[in-house]
Amino acid sequence: MNFRILHTDGNARVCTLTLERGTLHTPVFMPVGTMGAVKAMSPNELKDAGAQIILCNTYHLYLRPGEETVAEAGGLHKFINWDRPILTDSGGFQVFSLSPLRKISEEGVTFKSHINGSTHFIGPQRAMEIQRALGSDIVMAFDECTPYPSTYEYTLKSLNLTTTWAKTCLLNSSKTQTLFAIVQGGTYKDLRIESAKQLIDLNFEGYAVGGVSVGEPKEIMHEIIRYIPSELPKDKPRYLMGVGFPEDILEAVEAGFDMFDCVIPTRTARHGTLLTSAGRVIIGNSRFRRDHTPLDLECGCYTCQNFTKSYLNHLYKAGEILGIRLNTIHNLYFYLDFMKKIRAAIEQDRFISFKKDWLSNSYTPH
Amino acid sequence: MNFRILHTDGNARVCTLTLERGTLHTPVFMPVGTMGAVKAMSPNELKDAGAQIILCNTYHLYLRPGEETVAEAGGLHKFINWDRPILTDSGGFQVFSLSPLRKISEEGVTFKSHINGSTHFIGPQRAMEIQRALGSDIVMAFDECTPYPSTYEYTLKSLNLTTTWAKTCLLNSSKTQTLFAIVQGGTYKDLRIESAKQLIDLNFEGYAVGGVSVGEPKEIMHEIIRYIPSELPKDKPRYLMGVGFPEDILEAVEAGFDMFDCVIPTRTARHGTLLTSAGRVIIGNSRFRRDHTPLDLECGCYTCQNFTKSYLNHLYKAGEILGIRLNTIHNLYFYLDFMKKIRAAIEQDRFISFKKDWLSNSYTPH
Repeated sequence: MNFRILHTDGNARVCTLTLERGTLHTPVFMPVGTMGAVKAMSPNELKDAGAQIILCNTYHLYLRPGEETVAEAGGLHKFINWDRPILTDSGGFQVFSLSPLRKISEEGVTFKSHINGSTHFIGPQRAMEIQRALGSDIVMAFDECTPYPSTYEYTLKSLNLTTTWAKTCLLNSSKTQTLFAIVQGGTYKDLRIESAKQLIDLNFEGYAVGGVSVGEPKEIMHEIIRYIPSELPKDKPRYLMGVGFPEDILEAVEAGFDMFDCVIPTRTARHGTLLTSAGRVIIGNSRFRRDHTPLDLECGCYTCQNFTKSYLNHLYKAGEILGIRLNTIHNLYFYLDFMKKIRAAIEQDRFISFKKDWLSNSYTPH
Repeated sequence: MNFRILHTDGNARVCTLTLERGTLHTPVFMPVGTMGAVKAMSPNELKDAGAQIILCNTYHLYLRPGEETVAEAGGLHKFINWDRPILTDSGGFQVFSLSPLRKISEEGVTFKSHINGSTHFIGPQRAMEIQRALGSDIVMAFDECTPYPSTYEYTLKSLNLTTTWAKTCLLNSSKTQTLFAIVQGGTYKDLRIESAKQLIDLNFEGYAVGGVSVGEPKEIMHEIIRYIPSELPKDKPRYLMGVGFPEDILEAVEAGFDMFDCVIPTRTARHGTLLTSAGRVIIGNSRFRRDHTPLDLECGCYTCQNFTKSYLNHLYKAGEILGIRLNTIHNLYFYLDFMKKIRAAIEQDRFISFKKDWLSNSYTPH
């Protein structure tokens, strides 16, 4: 991996992250393909929408179809027919958020499958093995995603465990994959800084921040977002996991984050909530039944170029899969185009005014 | 409309049916876009699969979004962004198959919406009005779809009513739309012939056969398919409604039918049943979990060119929309390619041997 800072505007920065399968232009948004498919999207549609990289989940792919099946297929890229970079989440977050029963030890986590209740074990070594079999370009160290709320004592113990596991991940990492560590520490600033320090000492190729947007108030999340980047190495990519709404991304870019993933654009699309330059559109609303104009006049996506709000309203009400598809295409295009605009604003040293305009004019914050 | 017979091979024939929006090459299969969308497919994917024309349902579009909304949008073609021909079913079949309560009179049918239970009335005049508002290229006369089984007496009364309605449809037809009548008569050969005679006397531009594949045994359906075409004008298109499996289409083409529609390829795709040159594939079957070969090596569709059975099995098990999409793309391509092969076989005077080969080698009949 090669990481270059091309331009800075305050702490916001435009960088390139070069991997074997392509160069990412950051700040970058990674659409989420949990089970090896970005919901409702085909690979060519993802490219049309401007996706540079997608995220897949180690936990989900380990349970189904199993990493040996994916390895047999020639790796995840071949299995899902996606030739651009893939980042795989280590499974830590899913083990903690989806498994009905789990037992944590120094070695790892014993948990029950959310699909069929069968018992499984994943520790740092196993997480690396699975990600190696999947053949993703960027792999994440196995971490404990500290829940919110947690006590100071628990959070400290937990971040130390994450560091211990991160060491094991380093020892078991593949030379052809880029390994990122995940900073934990919950809502305690000193623990966040401690976690960052411990992991920086181990010299990873990139640093992610996990355990945010897990239920804590938005102000607390934004506070973490603001102070953490300066605690991380300047010359390495910084990835804010699982965030977020456009206003959260703006906050994080301003603070110096480079990479993002979130299910918001795809999930809200499936439920009929669309993001446009004129604000949020609830497409099932009856006021769109006879609105024969495009969803977003400023948008260049397939949906906006070819269909009207009236048709999208009809498809939504009729429960047609095509509606889910057209909504998802639009929301992903919107997010990826938003990142493009962010990069342009940074390059032109006008990120702060771009952010201000965005928040006041074009987007209704959540 | 201009109809030309280009080549015959026995009773099987290759024709062109020229409409304002394009020329259909028959025998033609029309994918079903019930509510203004062929389930899971986008218009460009339909074109890629080789669709020349699609069918939409007057009953469904009348109820939702309403024909005025579609007319306001500039007609159905603009509403759904499909610039090739559209045939609309008159609503007769749906009124009889979907409405929980209905009352038939000489004037038409009073029925309850299957969506919200509201009361509606559609008669022949109204059916023509709705189809005119939709702006479809081929419109169907409003008919009573005689249920199976029905008595001889009921069937006779019913076909006479269909003829009466057909006259009203003729009087209310638009010059810019092509109007087909629908032959009824249930399972009674003399009544089928009587229905055909009555409608032929009225001189329609095309003739459809309705009320088949409504629950009668397959042998009875095939018998009707075999004797009816010779009772219909040679110089006009013959359309077998709602049929069917490939083996049914072969039977009907041999007898002289030109047009077909059916939900089988799209519906079975959504449930994971795929039609291939090597027979039927139940893609959720665990023997495909590690099958890293394409679904059909002889197929040129997007699915077979880009993905494996293993991935399709995974998507099916994971309940991913992409799985439904890829399955639908394949099955529709398979059907439309099948029609292409039928046309080529007729043109080369080898339809009977093509049919025999197909039934014995490549396809497991239902």
